Amino acid sequence: MLLMKGDVVAEDILSKVKKTIEEKKLSLKLTAILVGNDEASKIYVSSKKKDCEKCGIASEVIHLSEKTTEKELLDTIEKLNNDDSVTGILCQLPLPPHLNEDKVIDSISYKKDADCFHPYNVGKLFIGNPIVEPCTPKGVIKMLEYYNIELSGKNAVVIGRSNIVGKPASIMLLQKNATVTICHSKTKNISEITKQADIIVIAVGKPHFLKADMVKNGCVVVDVGIHRIEDKTLEKGYKIIGDADFEEISKKASAITPVPGGVGIMTRAILMQNILTLGLTYQGKN
Amino acid sequence: MLLMKGDVVAEDILSKVKKTIEEKKLSLKLTAILVGNDEASKIYVSSKKKDCEKCGIASEVIHLSEKTTEKELLDTIEKLNNDDSVTGILCQLPLPPHLNEDKVIDSISYKKDADCFHPYNVGKLFIGNPIVEPCTPKGVIKMLEYYNIELSGKNAVVIGRSNIVGKPASIMLLQKNATVTICHSKTKNISEITKQADIIVIAVGKPHFLKADMVKNGCVVVDVGIHRIEDKTLEKGYKIIGDADFEEISKKASAITPVPGGVGIMTRAILMQNILTLGLTYQGKN
Repeated sequence: MLLMKGDVVAEDILSKVKKTIEEKKLSLKLTAILVGNDEASKIYVSSKKKDCEKCGIASEVIHLSEKTTEKELLDTIEKLNNDDSVTGILCQLPLPPHLNEDKVIDSISYKKDADCFHPYNVGKLFIGNPIVEPCTPKGVIKMLEYYNIELSGKNAVVIGRSNIVGKPASIMLLQKNATVTICHSKTKNISEITKQADIIVIAVGKPHFLKADMVKNGCVVVDVGIHRIEDKTLEKGYKIIGDADFEEISKKASAITPVPGGVGIMTRAILMQNILTLGLTYQGKN
Repeated sequence: MLLMKGDVVAEDILSKVKKTIEEKKLSLKLTAILVGNDEASKIYVSSKKKDCEKCGIASEVIHLSEKTTEKELLDTIEKLNNDDSVTGILCQLPLPPHLNEDKVIDSISYKKDADCFHPYNVGKLFIGNPIVEPCTPKGVIKMLEYYNIELSGKNAVVIGRSNIVGKPASIMLLQKNATVTICHSKTKNISEITKQADIIVIAVGKPHFLKADMVKNGCVVVDVGIHRIEDKTLEKGYKIIGDADFEEISKKASAITPVPGGVGIMTRAILMQNILTLGLTYQGKN
């Protein structure tokens, strides 16, 4: 059984990004916008800042109050769109409920859209002519490729249909010539489908949703879920688990990503790669 | 067995489009660009013009020579983008090989993109927040809805993964809560997959690719293919057939679209609906 760890793959990507930035003497800068005081969002933004430092990308965080109006936020983005020193922008989601996420994402120039959330970039991906790619599903694909998992002609089942993971992962697997089935909350007899899968990508946000009796021997499982579950037997009082029952499934799978230590860190590495790509593609061409 | 004919559905759409245009006193205009002398393209453009007349939409065809340069074509589009009287633009595909289709489609304002080929509009569709929708797959969905085919929780199999039909049809079926599998030329054991389908949408461009032994009893088949096949027993010397073997499959299916008389005409009707939608959404807001 192959344990597909993310750290080596992510390090590989980050070091290549760093090397390219140095060699080409690029001046790249990510501006992350954080609205409100969500603790998880703060942690995410601060790790992205650290990754930038590692790669030689300048970064800044604009921290706006919970009560920021839509106009204030859109004005902030407009300024960044027009600031030539800023080559990548991201607005950390989720936003407070009074702000329209679609409108905010739309307002970020697609030329600086580090997350690949802008409809133009999503459309380019869909058409098969991407500029940047969404971080988590691209991380999934990179991981599968790094570990030499054959995708062409394989039955791939994606569980979950979010705009951020499930849907783009399906399209990207399709473009790698997999036969793709997308399952979701309305799917009936899901184990009939997962049992036929050569590759399963799961991103449903439900701890241990995928059980060993739902997969066939030799399948490949990529687990995008991450959950903190109370566990009083541990000193820290909790453990981190995924959407798949790692312990049981790893006895049947030919390859599986651990949680933690799997896809999570890949998302961050691809973000850096996107900032580089945007810089190479558009810098000086606003 | 239910024969899902397109003409009644298309007529229904066209008459609603016409009524809305009259009631709201809209001045809409489609400009179709035709490059070169492809006979099929000429026929398509002229039928679109006729549909416009039916609905009370003004229309014009700009017929450019086979030798038009990319710059000339892009300049023409730019003028139309800036012409407030033009509310919908389409560039009939395929283009002569010296012209870059992606670049041309990108250059059409997404606010006038009647075909829904622009990456921005494709991205909005993918995200689940569409403005316009691509004509043929939207025609497929409208047809299924008109004939009260339940989609939620059903296994839908899409055969073909083109940007114009297969991929968007998959996303649209997914958004109707079907469990969607996308098959293509690299799919192995395709009949194992099609035999489990409640609904099959086929758009592979191969005459009678789908045979009766590949489908289960009671399945629903939507056939997007259209082929002219020599048949000397007929006075006209040919017959029109689809991607599915209608005669045999209709003995097993619970519902099927005929070819001709099925999806084909729907594509044209949805184009008119898109022109209306663009007018309602953007007219006067260039």
